[in-house]
Amino acid sequence: MPTLGQNQYGKAENRVVRITRDGATHHIKDLNVSVALSGDMDEVHYSGSNASVLPTDTTKNTVYAFAKQYGIESAEQFGVHLARHFVTSQPAIHRARIRIEEYAWERVEHSGEGAHSFVRTGRETRLAQITHDDGGAWEVVSGLKDLTVMNSTNSEFWGYVKDKYTTLPEAYDRVLATEVSGRWRFNWTDDTQPVPDWDESYEETRKHLLAAFAETYSLSLQQTLYAMGSRIVERRPEIDEVRFSLPNKHHFLVDLAPFGLKNDTADSAVYFAADRPYGLIEATVLRDGCDARIPEDLTNL
Amino acid sequence: MPTLGQNQYGKAENRVVRITRDGATHHIKDLNVSVALSGDMDEVHYSGSNASVLPTDTTKNTVYAFAKQYGIESAEQFGVHLARHFVTSQPAIHRARIRIEEYAWERVEHSGEGAHSFVRTGRETRLAQITHDDGGAWEVVSGLKDLTVMNSTNSEFWGYVKDKYTTLPEAYDRVLATEVSGRWRFNWTDDTQPVPDWDESYEETRKHLLAAFAETYSLSLQQTLYAMGSRIVERRPEIDEVRFSLPNKHHFLVDLAPFGLKNDTADSAVYFAADRPYGLIEATVLRDGCDARIPEDLTNL
Amino acid sequence: MPTLGQNQYGKAENRVVRITRDGATHHIKDLNVSVALSGDMDEVHYSGSNASVLPTDTTKNTVYAFAKQYGIESAEQFGVHLARHFVTSQPAIHRARIRIEEYAWERVEHSGEGAHSFVRTGRETRLAQITHDDGGAWEVVSGLKDLTVMNSTNSEFWGYVKDKYTTLPEAYDRVLATEVSGRWRFNWTDDTQPVPDWDESYEETRKHLLAAFAETYSLSLQQTLYAMGSRIVERRPEIDEVRFSLPNKHHFLVDLAPFGLKNDTADSAVYFAADRPYGLIEATVLRDGCDARIPEDLTNL
Amino acid sequence: MPTLGQNQYGKAENRVVRITRDGATHHIKDLNVSVALSGDMDEVHYSGSNASVLPTDTTKNTVYAFAKQYGIESAEQFGVHLARHFVTSQPAIHRARIRIEEYAWERVEHSGEGAHSFVRTGRETRLAQITHDDGGAWEVVSGLKDLTVMNSTNSEFWGYVKDKYTTLPEAYDRVLATEVSGRWRFNWTDDTQPVPDWDESYEETRKHLLAAFAETYSLSLQQTLYAMGSRIVERRPEIDEVRFSLPNKHHFLVDLAPFGLKNDTADSAVYFAADRPYGLIEATVLRDGCDARIPEDLTNL
Repeated sequence: MPTLGQNQYGKAENRVVRITRDGATHHIKDLNVSVALSGDMDEVHYSGSNASVLPTDTTKNTVYAFAKQYGIESAEQFGVHLARHFVTSQPAIHRARIRIEEYAWERVEHSGEGAHSFVRTGRETRLAQITHDDGGAWEVVSGLKDLTVMNSTNSEFWGYVKDKYTTLPEAYDRVLATEVSGRWRFNWTDDTQPVPDWDESYEETRKHLLAAFAETYSLSLQQTLYAMGSRIVERRPEIDEVRFSLPNKHHFLVDLAPFGLKNDTADSAVYFAADRPYGLIEATVLRDGCDARIPEDLTNL
Repeated sequence: MPTLGQNQYGKAENRVVRITRDGATHHIKDLNVSVALSGDMDEVHYSGSNASVLPTDTTKNTVYAFAKQYGIESAEQFGVHLARHFVTSQPAIHRARIRIEEYAWERVEHSGEGAHSFVRTGRETRLAQITHDDGGAWEVVSGLKDLTVMNSTNSEFWGYVKDKYTTLPEAYDRVLATEVSGRWRFNWTDDTQPVPDWDESYEETRKHLLAAFAETYSLSLQQTLYAMGSRIVERRPEIDEVRFSLPNKHHFLVDLAPFGLKNDTADSAVYFAADRPYGLIEATVLRDGCDARIPEDLTNL
Repeated sequence: MPTLGQNQYGKAENRVVRITRDGATHHIKDLNVSVALSGDMDEVHYSGSNASVLPTDTTKNTVYAFAKQYGIESAEQFGVHLARHFVTSQPAIHRARIRIEEYAWERVEHSGEGAHSFVRTGRETRLAQITHDDGGAWEVVSGLKDLTVMNSTNSEFWGYVKDKYTTLPEAYDRVLATEVSGRWRFNWTDDTQPVPDWDESYEETRKHLLAAFAETYSLSLQQTLYAMGSRIVERRPEIDEVRFSLPNKHHFLVDLAPFGLKNDTADSAVYFAADRPYGLIEATVLRDGCDARIPEDLTNL
Repeated sequence: MPTLGQNQYGKAENRVVRITRDGATHHIKDLNVSVALSGDMDEVHYSGSNASVLPTDTTKNTVYAFAKQYGIESAEQFGVHLARHFVTSQPAIHRARIRIEEYAWERVEHSGEGAHSFVRTGRETRLAQITHDDGGAWEVVSGLKDLTVMNSTNSEFWGYVKDKYTTLPEAYDRVLATEVSGRWRFNWTDDTQPVPDWDESYEETRKHLLAAFAETYSLSLQQTLYAMGSRIVERRPEIDEVRFSLPNKHHFLVDLAPFGLKNDTADSAVYFAADRPYGLIEATVLRDGCDARIPEDLTNL
């Protein structure tokens, strides 16, 4: 009989918005929370017996009830709270994994009274994944996706291998643009350690990521990626591992010579922003001596 | 024989990025430009003769060449320039319509040298549609899409019609959230009039739209829509007509009573942000005495 | 004071699945229904009074209740039923517009008992828009979207206008591919006329559309479009008007000469299927003597 | 200094269409091919030296050239060919991973001459991932995504764990619908073994998957998942491991009691097809004694 391997289940994409009122000033947390539980689940697969199954609907209810009862201090803290609950309250559950997307809102500037109007920033989506097992171990991976950045100069690409299928001309001043998808893993792994300040960590990590992208004179996107990852590992002691997936969003200089126009980068240049195909550069950067745990393929949630 | 009705053709979604250099300080314009031409096109439909057809590929080339040669002062100005070119240079073309999406970028803050690093804001997409015919008339409609806003209070909904299918309870303090899609038409219609400052108009219109949303104590989304539209028409003399399509992005208070929790708006409340279905409110607001020209269904581009 | 122009409201994208049982054989209808109502709605916009407003939530309830009580014979018939209800039961409603997407399912072939397993075909999405006003007039527009078709030969493009921005070489054997978005309007306009067989009309119209695409030796996509539209008008007496929006999904022959390979169409050819930009060809075909009523810009729903 | 961990690079999403002509009968292969290479890539990350880097542009050229020169017998065979080329021709490349999406086309039925008109089926997308390292080992994982299926009866859900957050009523006749994402791994791992018939394997695996879904009287989606996976492992000797990710696409019976309607499954029932949240069931099924190698999180490509 075929064997059951790794399995998990839960309710995905619970859209939770929590609004708190401090007089006329309101605050908003806007999350998309997914729950995945693993444990003694052989029977439900083999015979359909649900005797060990906490319904996915219950995991949804728990997310909303916890948001009300305990609040949402940060995505990571909320995930820690949920994961601990499932593992400690359900004997059949041996691992809980909580994934969270967070959407940022800014206040609308206006001259009326109150502070309860918001506009969604739309820039990047913040990500968090919290995994807890009944041995007490924690793994927290945070990250972001859809952060689109561009350097309009200070990027070159030359000196590469040439085989019979190589036609690419070398480039000494190109646009470097990418849509950053990044994940970073914390070295907080058990309850005896001090808990990081998750929000401060996110803001600082994001700043280092952007600064490294902006300040690196790039000879390859791989070099830029490593600069981003190593800067985070060097500046943020709470983070041991970073992985990036960076599509090279090609901006091709348009050939305008047929129209008598010289399209170079001297003062202004016109580019075609291509959709597909795109280069895709992926790598992990690790604190020296640490093991890699983030999978090769980054997940969306 | 069946008759040919309204028809148009051209190259859609030309992704044009123009970067200009002012020393170490770079500037970026990022557009998605679509061209649609109409004119003496009976033969190409009836017999396939292309004798009157400027290829869509040529319209693409023109977009890129103009971006280099004449620059992109604003989306609207660029569209005016292109539309005029097609109508005046091609005898068979009697109308040109240019549609443009513009994506906004901000500078990355960092301590390195130069100012050539950007992050895409991702908030709303700016829109412009420029139509020109060989009689010399202009129609410019600008707008935006994907601007998501929320008021966490100051919204009610009650006193409505009740029929046998009505079950909705009245609401005296609800979240009002929408993803604004708006279009506004300028009263600049021929070359003898002074040309508006397109960028300033966009920025101010957007501000009025947001302020009206934030400052309106809302008894219905229709009332908020009208407040947004009328404020624009009243404050911006260059605009005669505004149309909005506003999905009511429902945030439902979650029933937490089964868990012994009272989920009201006294100090904090937890909502389920629903995807579908959604209320959809659409209306036009006009300067008194002006005709409506924006179609009922707003286009994406 | 700014004037209120055209306006409408209702619940959009109600996802209705109805399953009927004929013993062990089940049947499925899977719709996405949007309701838009217009009428005496000045006050709700000007002052927020909802005294004339049937809530969008009620329109949602009505969709589900009607699906149960009266069934869904076809998308069009269901829309007619709903539109009639809103206009005749609500004095303040003067026009109702129902838009429907329909998703097709096929039976799963298997050797077990019963006939209650389905797989979604995923090919095209069927569309219907039913508009009814309190004067008794009907307008029914049906259509489809996302039907991707290709002719791998029998398509040419040459003899076009050349200006200073033209670089395109003429083509004598090219791939012609498009993602068909079509709408067709019925001449059933009041209750005294016999009602068309909506499902048979859809199936036959779709067949004519595909056959005309396949059988036309094409000198331009416009010619193919006209062939598709005129064939429908000529073969289907219940239809007076057809409009298509046809993106030219470019398949470019890849230049393999640098690798010593001749990539022509003699026996096999390799193409790059491009995303953007794309040619976009749009036109209306009318029964001789009929007026055009389908808007220039086709809606998705 | 931070350490470089797993890394790979290449050109993603090369859209390749190959058309072959057998007289007037044409055949089409439509793929989306992604290349990811790993090897001696420390320097490009640390210093930006590209001396070991075959450009992603070259990998794109290779895909197109191979499609012409060697043809595309099947997605898997094409991927094997590409992967072998990169590993054997580039000393610095120690692993090549090729990912392929394949889109299916059917012939358009018509009465004209020739057989060169196609319609894209749109049902599922076929997937293949081929990994080859310079030790000679192969790993081939095939699969599909976006195959939406439904059983309109023969599904129950009851007997589950109830805690203080459980409110779900038990269900004895529910709709079971999911959008299948599946991957299966072949036990073909080196060149000495006979190569599977990839296309036949795909067609048969897909049939077993659908038949198991249709024929399983389901007490939980986990049970259905295991039935699908075990049937594949039992019937297809070339496959050792299957993993599924199955969103439970909830179809909720609408409460029509307020309108005096009984909405049960006796003869017809009306459901609300929900978007989010959704249950998500994921599991691996293994041939007895085999190790699991497919990652927990399935990739799209």
